[in-house]
Amino acid sequence: MADEFDVIVIGAGPAGENVIERAVRGGLSAAIVEDRLAGGECAYWACVPSKALLRPVDLAGEVSRVPGLSLGPIDAAAVLARRDETVSHFDDSGQVRWIEGVPAEFFRGRGRIDGPKRVVVSGEDGGERVLTARQAVVLATGSTAVVPPVPGLAEADPWTSHEVTATDAIPERLAVIGGGVVACEMAQAMHGLGARQTTVLVRGGRLLGRMEPFAGDLLAESFAEAGIDVRTHTDVTRVERPEPGGKVTVHLAEGPPLEADELLVATGRRPATRDLGLGTVGLKDGDYVEVDDSMRATGVSEGWLYAVGDVNGRALLTHMGKYQARICGDVIAARARGDELSRMRDLADGYGAPQVVFTDPQICAVGRTEAAARQAGFRVRVVEYDLASVTGAYLMGDGYRGRANAVVDEDRKVLLGVTFAGPGTADLLHSASIAVTAEVPIDRLWHAVPSFPTVSEVWLRLLEAYGL
Amino acid sequence: MADEFDVIVIGAGPAGENVIERAVRGGLSAAIVEDRLAGGECAYWACVPSKALLRPVDLAGEVSRVPGLSLGPIDAAAVLARRDETVSHFDDSGQVRWIEGVPAEFFRGRGRIDGPKRVVVSGEDGGERVLTARQAVVLATGSTAVVPPVPGLAEADPWTSHEVTATDAIPERLAVIGGGVVACEMAQAMHGLGARQTTVLVRGGRLLGRMEPFAGDLLAESFAEAGIDVRTHTDVTRVERPEPGGKVTVHLAEGPPLEADELLVATGRRPATRDLGLGTVGLKDGDYVEVDDSMRATGVSEGWLYAVGDVNGRALLTHMGKYQARICGDVIAARARGDELSRMRDLADGYGAPQVVFTDPQICAVGRTEAAARQAGFRVRVVEYDLASVTGAYLMGDGYRGRANAVVDEDRKVLLGVTFAGPGTADLLHSASIAVTAEVPIDRLWHAVPSFPTVSEVWLRLLEAYGL
Repeated sequence: MADEFDVIVIGAGPAGENVIERAVRGGLSAAIVEDRLAGGECAYWACVPSKALLRPVDLAGEVSRVPGLSLGPIDAAAVLARRDETVSHFDDSGQVRWIEGVPAEFFRGRGRIDGPKRVVVSGEDGGERVLTARQAVVLATGSTAVVPPVPGLAEADPWTSHEVTATDAIPERLAVIGGGVVACEMAQAMHGLGARQTTVLVRGGRLLGRMEPFAGDLLAESFAEAGIDVRTHTDVTRVERPEPGGKVTVHLAEGPPLEADELLVATGRRPATRDLGLGTVGLKDGDYVEVDDSMRATGVSEGWLYAVGDVNGRALLTHMGKYQARICGDVIAARARGDELSRMRDLADGYGAPQVVFTDPQICAVGRTEAAARQAGFRVRVVEYDLASVTGAYLMGDGYRGRANAVVDEDRKVLLGVTFAGPGTADLLHSASIAVTAEVPIDRLWHAVPSFPTVSEVWLRLLEAYGL
Repeated sequence: MADEFDVIVIGAGPAGENVIERAVRGGLSAAIVEDRLAGGECAYWACVPSKALLRPVDLAGEVSRVPGLSLGPIDAAAVLARRDETVSHFDDSGQVRWIEGVPAEFFRGRGRIDGPKRVVVSGEDGGERVLTARQAVVLATGSTAVVPPVPGLAEADPWTSHEVTATDAIPERLAVIGGGVVACEMAQAMHGLGARQTTVLVRGGRLLGRMEPFAGDLLAESFAEAGIDVRTHTDVTRVERPEPGGKVTVHLAEGPPLEADELLVATGRRPATRDLGLGTVGLKDGDYVEVDDSMRATGVSEGWLYAVGDVNGRALLTHMGKYQARICGDVIAARARGDELSRMRDLADGYGAPQVVFTDPQICAVGRTEAAARQAGFRVRVVEYDLASVTGAYLMGDGYRGRANAVVDEDRKVLLGVTFAGPGTADLLHSASIAVTAEVPIDRLWHAVPSFPTVSEVWLRLLEAYGL
């Protein structure tokens, strides 16, 4: 194997894989380094298994609203078995073959930067190998869960997203610390699969605090009806777990302590940039790697270092990491040829990344919330509509509940943001992603007619509510 | 009640109702005439009840692909009861109240034109009333099912869309003549609800002959697996039904005759323009009423006659009728004021109306098919993608099958048409409707990032297949 490549990528998750694919397509040679499984967090311990766990729960919710259908209890073992299939039983040989077929060189080991354009790979056997990049080194190491410094919490060895998505058993009593996407999705999955007592401990005032307030409120209603206990304004002061893997006691600032069989911490992520050698090129260990719209690190001279995905902190979402990676791979190849194509820039993150929360109801948003738009200085008008009043939604089931809004830029008459909260909206979101990202004038959106009777007809209602 | 109004609408289906709503909002007075139920075919005998019948069948299909879920048999009686609810038990008092609240005058009776700007309403009691329009008369009478002139067919009193959606019992053996949307949707609904022997007799070579060929092929595969017998290239030569409501024998050009307990004819629609008095203003009874992009009838002098919805033959789809109606109501109000807003024109029908077939798999299309685009002289390139290879689709269930294509205008680099065939694509279609109708350049679509893992990621794959 050669030791010199045009591009060296550290981290073989979806983002890293997309970089090598695009760079090689652009005529460059590439190597990619990974110390865990090729395919990354997303494929084994995040999006893929979480969706596999949520899908039956989500569908059971839909069925419960349709008269004439009766569902037996969910067979959790079968769901876990299907989850195992979706993560290829934690075997990455298919991914490695894919990498080799790009073609690119795969190095199993821990990669770290060792000065400009140098990457050292430490293998499991303790051996080291030095790789040199002719054009670029790309960081795609992702992020890891933060465990907040609550006394006893780290010692209790709690679950993070990594462990909960890979579990082989459903705890009877689950305590969840956090109110964001991972907390909400996994509380619902575990509850639906058998965690009878599921308690969500939220520091702030509502679930999904970064999204439109109505979204978190609607989800909280649904959780309450399902029997998931959501406690807002809750401070965890101390955690006890005398026996490893045994009963957990969560002490709260107010009220009696909470007992559970398992504890999930989902309070945020930090960039996986520790021990990555950032110090050898003037960056700080443990920080996000700041990049420009071409994904090039801004703090490094001569422009050979890039970062894509969670590690640059732009948007901690797999699809955005992949998008950034396609841009990055294209940019590196173009620069190697002496080109600078303006198309190869990250526009999407500027508009506000689309995101789907796969709960029941699904919560889907793109662009800016009303609050974010106002804070950014836009002159906005917001229109809202009750999704249950859309015929296509009503026909999806009895007691359908949902809500949508659109944030309109009053100066340019384009949409700055759209949020859908309701069953069956996950794939409706892309319509909003196109409208927001392509800045389609609302006068023109008027002529894109939603099919009757679909949930999409909310588009018509929102535009009517605006006055069209 | 007055006898003179600014606008008189004949037909109180969704299209007619939208006309009065927009016209009154524009400052005009309006009357609307209906001899059956206010709310129209769509609300009682088409989209709404058909979707109510299909939803549990569709959902049962989805459940069958998800390990860990087990569904009992569908309770057809409960489904029919829910259908009755969705059609308000065939009581239109809610709709009449809505009309009165617009406010507009509601006349129950059969309306017909009697010379320029005159409408005669014949009540059930045999009385007649003459109404005069100051600005415009709008035809919104819809369409009715065609029963082809096959010997014995009309005498057999077969079901059309009207009867099948309103049925109180599911026949054991159902024969369906036709291979279009109604035929496919109702074959699947009845089969799913208990019509064990369901046979679809198609004159042409495939189901859904106006859509991309792969769509009908995929649906035929799904039907075959479900046990619905689809027979293409089949000519029905004669029908016998000795006893009213009894057993039906369908004779075919080839092979043995087919016996069934009920027969559904779904071979097309004709405009509901008979006995409408078109002859009094120089148009022909029974024909579609041709209109310009402002919905004004082209064959009538002085421009006081308009037609919206099925009756103008542009697109026999409820949502397009409503869209045309909004334009029509706005145009009439604007012209009454002496305005001419260019926004108030039918653009959408020119691009190709969006349509969703609510079968399993759902078949969704907007714009032009490849064949239609080529025939219209566009220089096109078509890209296709196997939906089952999209992670978000794979996660929806085992054995997910689907396909998508996009027809690209090579000269302008915009999409002329998009087709999705697969479970869960009904609300994905609106993304394509926006892209096609707003002519979003594909270079720009590239930056609308589909969320992972959703079915929407097929957008990324199609653009990659194109070479982006």
